[in-house]
Amino acid sequence: MALIETPYLLFLGDAPDALAAKVAQGIRDWRPDNAVGQFRMEGCKADMKLPDMTLAEAKAAGAKTLVIGVANRGGVISQAWKKVLIEALEEGFDLASGLHNLLTDEPDLKAVAEATGRALHDVRVPAVDYPIANGVKRTGKRVLAVGTDCSVGKMYTSLAMDREMKARGLNSSFRATGQTGILITGDGVPLDAVVADFMAGAVEYLTPDAAPDHWDHIEGQGSLFHVSYSGVTMALIHGGQPDALILAHEPTREHMRGLPGYGLPSLEALRDMALPLARIANPACEVVAVSVNTQHLGEDEAAAYLDEVEERMGLPATDPFRHGAAKLVDALLAMG
Amino acid sequence: MALIETPYLLFLGDAPDALAAKVAQGIRDWRPDNAVGQFRMEGCKADMKLPDMTLAEAKAAGAKTLVIGVANRGGVISQAWKKVLIEALEEGFDLASGLHNLLTDEPDLKAVAEATGRALHDVRVPAVDYPIANGVKRTGKRVLAVGTDCSVGKMYTSLAMDREMKARGLNSSFRATGQTGILITGDGVPLDAVVADFMAGAVEYLTPDAAPDHWDHIEGQGSLFHVSYSGVTMALIHGGQPDALILAHEPTREHMRGLPGYGLPSLEALRDMALPLARIANPACEVVAVSVNTQHLGEDEAAAYLDEVEERMGLPATDPFRHGAAKLVDALLAMG
Repeated sequence: MALIETPYLLFLGDAPDALAAKVAQGIRDWRPDNAVGQFRMEGCKADMKLPDMTLAEAKAAGAKTLVIGVANRGGVISQAWKKVLIEALEEGFDLASGLHNLLTDEPDLKAVAEATGRALHDVRVPAVDYPIANGVKRTGKRVLAVGTDCSVGKMYTSLAMDREMKARGLNSSFRATGQTGILITGDGVPLDAVVADFMAGAVEYLTPDAAPDHWDHIEGQGSLFHVSYSGVTMALIHGGQPDALILAHEPTREHMRGLPGYGLPSLEALRDMALPLARIANPACEVVAVSVNTQHLGEDEAAAYLDEVEERMGLPATDPFRHGAAKLVDALLAMG
Repeated sequence: MALIETPYLLFLGDAPDALAAKVAQGIRDWRPDNAVGQFRMEGCKADMKLPDMTLAEAKAAGAKTLVIGVANRGGVISQAWKKVLIEALEEGFDLASGLHNLLTDEPDLKAVAEATGRALHDVRVPAVDYPIANGVKRTGKRVLAVGTDCSVGKMYTSLAMDREMKARGLNSSFRATGQTGILITGDGVPLDAVVADFMAGAVEYLTPDAAPDHWDHIEGQGSLFHVSYSGVTMALIHGGQPDALILAHEPTREHMRGLPGYGLPSLEALRDMALPLARIANPACEVVAVSVNTQHLGEDEAAAYLDEVEERMGLPATDPFRHGAAKLVDALLAMG
């Protein structure tokens, strides 16, 4: 990925509901300073509670990039959006998108971007020739969240730890490995689109040598227990050479996401699988905490579940969305 | 991969030594019926002990594809070869290559192939849009060799087991996942070039439902303990859903290939890592035997080492190159 210039104007288009604007919401939640305002078309049902701006107003407010913060059905770039996107290029904005259909595959956008000298960032497409991993130990500290399943809150956990560390004045970076994470931060590696031989090397590239007290929060992907994507998780564990693993779990899920017939592993099974694999790349790696996504549990139920996990696993457990990431960060800092 | 039409004429070019013609040697060793002859240029130092043929002679003998069985320094398609390759296209041969530099990136070859209606097969490039893995249990039996390191003899082990099964009249296929394997058999998946999200799906595609008594011998890649490529190995374990694992090892290696500072794991560590991972996709999976590459050991030393491994691991152990694959096949058939 070439770096996406910030701050952004968030394009919400004609979003049919709030969920369709998930990417914009991620930017709003995690990098509010990156968004000067929102651009909504007629009928837009999403609202980031940011100032509604015209392109000219956003430009005046310093916005550099129009980010498509909304997903259409099928990931398509709607004709209804084209007028705005082309005008944005002409006004001097770059465009950034995580949609399946690429900005660079639209001949009109491509032609106008070339004529105006603006950049089209398709964050699904790797823009770098990543090296093959060399396994050389890097300086600085790294933490990776590994999940019992996909989509259990790994990105959220890492963003929350990064925010908590920054709030404490500590030296910390979130390292994005997926489309939403890349758009939130403006940089990262779209790992699921990297060619097999270069996956681990891409993660090494993403998390270079750093100061001894610096923590990289590497965004996790997939799960060792999810047969469709476990290879991607493996590359994160070996390319990331984490010092610390956080176990991420969603306790009400009945089977692995998209794989009926595959039950979820226990937290113990995840720990026992992930840790020996991580120690191949970093013999000092430890499992330090558990991050539980309790969104489907009531307040008391969530508290009881977290207590039970702490007792059973002998590890701090929290829901960073519900209770903040302080416990997780304390666990990292306790590593010494 | 589109299927490469057989039989082949093996192009050895101006190979500076026998090692440069490793791909041709693989075809010669494992699919001799696929090669009607060899084409050597002046100064060629490799010899497959096949009839030397002109293009016209090979055509008359039924050859369909000219396979580049030789590697140049840097994987380049030498200008010295071009005259022969272009003539071959004009004579009605397809071309197949596993070189880094692609046939389809050479404008002259591309133009002649288009004009003559012939195919250019670059086996490093996936030619299929593979699906995302669905994890659904497939019929038939599958065996995968997993290594303590890369390049310890996994392909050789699988080819030897396939040959032994066919010799016994059993129902068996070798499933290629690398360039050499694909050129040997004319079909397969170039797994290291597949995009991350589709790796496991590509392996599912490669080893479809089969008769209950049919064995797929899936060519292994990388190693769970090799941090550069472990994600590829992981996708083979989960996409392949093997019923049986063979542990592959080269006992004299001092560190992981290309990774000074990374020691090799023990066979016990490999077993304990690979089996629980394999059982996620196939709970019935078993580790059934050990394949040892004893090329750097003397006859007595090799025999003693194999005895020691059998005793220690409680598994049959053999070097399929030195002693044949009968023991390995017996172990598969003993699974019932």
